[in-house]
Amino acid sequence: MPPTRAVVLLSGGLDSSTCLAIAKSKGREAYALTVDYGQRHKREIEAAKKIAKRLGVKAHKILKFNLTQIGGSALTDKRITVPEKRSMEEIGRGIPSTYVPARNTILLGLALGYAETVDADEVYIAANALDVSGYPDCRPEFYTAFREVARLGTKRGVEGRPIHIHTPVIHMTKADIVRLGARLGVPFELTWSCYHGRGKACGVCDSCQLRLKGFREAGLEDPLPYASRNV
Amino acid sequence: MPPTRAVVLLSGGLDSSTCLAIAKSKGREAYALTVDYGQRHKREIEAAKKIAKRLGVKAHKILKFNLTQIGGSALTDKRITVPEKRSMEEIGRGIPSTYVPARNTILLGLALGYAETVDADEVYIAANALDVSGYPDCRPEFYTAFREVARLGTKRGVEGRPIHIHTPVIHMTKADIVRLGARLGVPFELTWSCYHGRGKACGVCDSCQLRLKGFREAGLEDPLPYASRNV
Repeated sequence: MPPTRAVVLLSGGLDSSTCLAIAKSKGREAYALTVDYGQRHKREIEAAKKIAKRLGVKAHKILKFNLTQIGGSALTDKRITVPEKRSMEEIGRGIPSTYVPARNTILLGLALGYAETVDADEVYIAANALDVSGYPDCRPEFYTAFREVARLGTKRGVEGRPIHIHTPVIHMTKADIVRLGARLGVPFELTWSCYHGRGKACGVCDSCQLRLKGFREAGLEDPLPYASRNV
Repeated sequence: MPPTRAVVLLSGGLDSSTCLAIAKSKGREAYALTVDYGQRHKREIEAAKKIAKRLGVKAHKILKFNLTQIGGSALTDKRITVPEKRSMEEIGRGIPSTYVPARNTILLGLALGYAETVDADEVYIAANALDVSGYPDCRPEFYTAFREVARLGTKRGVEGRPIHIHTPVIHMTKADIVRLGARLGVPFELTWSCYHGRGKACGVCDSCQLRLKGFREAGLEDPLPYASRNV
């Protein structure tokens, strides 16, 4: 029997790289999909390329689609500030300015389209509900709803072969993800999580802080160079 | 009270132009959204611009996003043929090669993102389940599922102000749409439905045939020039 094909949304960050490693560990033939949507951290795209190569994928599609045409987020509109040096309480409260309007709906739509084109059975997305829980499209109930959309809105669904949407890290803490990633051989040194795309990770944006906290709690050293590690 | 804002997906075809006219007739402040996804009929984009201007919109966003990067459809891959001269029985059977994988999921995701950015309360999409019923993402049950996605996956949904997804022509025949469009003053001569983008509409692709049949059954003359009107 041929291996099950899976489209894996790969941003180049810690979570999506671990997600790719999970799909690979299950024996999936992986089709990585990276969407270059004009996010501030273009460096993630370069990271994604290296990670896809290292972990071994059947294909890596990099879709160019500039969401700065829509804007509405600190990641897609330069006039909106990326929050820095927030406490974990502040990070956990409300929806941050880094929320990209309908981002995961758009990304999942693209992943579904790509999955139908390469006849893949599954889509993996590294949504995480525990940390940065403010993003509405990272909650489990959103994925329950999207599974219906995937079943009803595609040719494969009509044919009785719906594309399954997997969210393997959704209930994990960042420390859980770091531990699992380490076990599966994720090349952490190649991943990029910082909301900025500078030479070193800033260490003070929400994403850096959550990542550093995850490594700290997992008792592992983050191999990335940081401009600051003390917040 | 300020008018209700609505994002209207406007392809430049007969159905979406009528949809815009419906939103306007209800007093909506319309934000037209046209996605230039590399479809063969770029002429539709030009049509959309003229129609948006004629019907009066608050803004018209034309998003460039090349779905030929994904392919998988006669509309986004030149190697796949657009079917011609099919009988109505053939047109009604199965999913045609003009189905674009996950197209309406992607378009609705973009419309949701745009709606959040301009703080619109509604999205209008001209899905039609009766004609070309082969498209899975034109069926009412798909929209029922997507409404949940819109409610759960957006900031507005979390805030208790979900963006409503309207499909006003979903149960209409093409003749119904022509009659309603005529009543609402849709400039039919500016609309473009043909799957090709030549000087005249071909008259033989599924889209032209369904349009011509609609005008015929409505007892109205289609003002567009056709290369052929006899199939």
